[in-house]
Amino acid sequence: MSDLKSYLTATASRIDAAMDGFLPTAKTRPATIHSAMRYSVFAGGKRLRPVLCLAANAACGGDSENALAPACALELMHTYSLVHDDLPAMDDDDLRRGRPTCHKVYGEGMAVLTGDALLTQAFIVLAQTPETKRYSTRDFITELAETGGSEKLIGGQVLDLEGEAKPLTKRDLVRIHEAKTAALLTSSLRLGAMTANATPRKLEALTTFGHHLGLAFQVIDDILDVTQTTEMLGKTAGKDEAVEKSTYPAILGLDKSRKEAARLTKAAMKALQPLGKKATRLEQIATYLLDREY
Amino acid sequence: MSDLKSYLTATASRIDAAMDGFLPTAKTRPATIHSAMRYSVFAGGKRLRPVLCLAANAACGGDSENALAPACALELMHTYSLVHDDLPAMDDDDLRRGRPTCHKVYGEGMAVLTGDALLTQAFIVLAQTPETKRYSTRDFITELAETGGSEKLIGGQVLDLEGEAKPLTKRDLVRIHEAKTAALLTSSLRLGAMTANATPRKLEALTTFGHHLGLAFQVIDDILDVTQTTEMLGKTAGKDEAVEKSTYPAILGLDKSRKEAARLTKAAMKALQPLGKKATRLEQIATYLLDREY
Repeated sequence: MSDLKSYLTATASRIDAAMDGFLPTAKTRPATIHSAMRYSVFAGGKRLRPVLCLAANAACGGDSENALAPACALELMHTYSLVHDDLPAMDDDDLRRGRPTCHKVYGEGMAVLTGDALLTQAFIVLAQTPETKRYSTRDFITELAETGGSEKLIGGQVLDLEGEAKPLTKRDLVRIHEAKTAALLTSSLRLGAMTANATPRKLEALTTFGHHLGLAFQVIDDILDVTQTTEMLGKTAGKDEAVEKSTYPAILGLDKSRKEAARLTKAAMKALQPLGKKATRLEQIATYLLDREY
Repeated sequence: MSDLKSYLTATASRIDAAMDGFLPTAKTRPATIHSAMRYSVFAGGKRLRPVLCLAANAACGGDSENALAPACALELMHTYSLVHDDLPAMDDDDLRRGRPTCHKVYGEGMAVLTGDALLTQAFIVLAQTPETKRYSTRDFITELAETGGSEKLIGGQVLDLEGEAKPLTKRDLVRIHEAKTAALLTSSLRLGAMTANATPRKLEALTTFGHHLGLAFQVIDDILDVTQTTEMLGKTAGKDEAVEKSTYPAILGLDKSRKEAARLTKAAMKALQPLGKKATRLEQIATYLLDREY
């Protein structure tokens, strides 16, 4: 696993360097918005989506340079969704990745604009992805925009917002998690594979992998919110329970939630089989995500 | 001018029909966000950006069918910016196009998400634009995303937000208007021209036209805010003065502002010369915009 840890660290650094080049400097006018964009992006995130994008590119035999633009676009999309979700009118969160949230530092209006700017920047960056024989700019843009759109990422946040303080079934919860988390993780893998000109069969395998991995990831996040402290999480702990939000542990209990996470990860691993040995890195990442201390 | 009026009405209907096809139905789940998106889009706007896009396509001898996707994408981008600008944390407006603003009807959190969804949908739609010999999907996406980004549309709103209750010079004001208004009007013309495979020379002429037209349009908007009633405007009148916002009339006075609008429109007309007779429609539109009762 120390090999994986250094891979993750090296990849995060590589993404940060690429991201630095893809974002306007903090001095670009108007300076406030560019400083706020950088504050939100360079906050020590795990860069999980870029990591998955690059690892999927490698699993399909691609040149990782070609996956840098979509990797950064994915992280920009993810960061925008965090900035907006943290707003007082939404989840009203003061802490994110261990630091005050964007609206706490820059004010609410500026945080709305910062999210808007990060989302727009994602498409500026994504449009720079080199086309392949099978996949065009149109495919890349459609992939990310549909995943980020009203029926997936944003739709999930809507369901989440509407579901607060309302009892949900396990099925409701799966729908929310598919939309809010699994969809973007799956697109991370797909975009990485597309930049490697992957066959439709490999793309399909990675789609199934992403779906299960994403659900597993979200179950674990729900568990961690119950079992960890604010300090360990770097964001406010116990938040879900405080707002009576339906979560896996609330619906299934902690023990069954842990089993569900393990089952989903196993299903994810199985989906990788068509990729053979080249998928070892993705397998390691999935194992690592499941082994987070929950 | 009655010919122009029927052209504008027919074009707006055509855009509305295309937009209907490009948006998820109001029943698509989650229903709230799709109903909010449609509430914001189908609010009787002038469809000025789509009109300019289609007229520029015609001025460059294109097939207008090819300009429908960018025309709708431009209107989606424009509508998202209105929804977010109206938020309490921003301009805090209750009325827009004569109806309660999105956040008044759907709540603040949902209005943030609705704007996000409209912005994302703009790229889903824009990616469907047919490529031409000279212009690719990458060119279309880059054009709209840069115009909508942190240095133009969003940057202008930042300057506007930071400039409230602070005296601005005429130069500051021009910068804000370029970013907030002229940039998107210019991109409307450029995208229309690009779908007609316009020569670089024609594209350049339309860029100059859009720049002057956009500034003229904004000067007139400032004037109307002072001279018209809320009922006539369909949005809260006297708003700029109430928040001590710097505007053309506040800095130059009404009379000089009117002259400035006329001067800018003349410069816009002159820029159209390289397009010859095919630009008649664009000339009519510019004249019409200047002749709004101010």
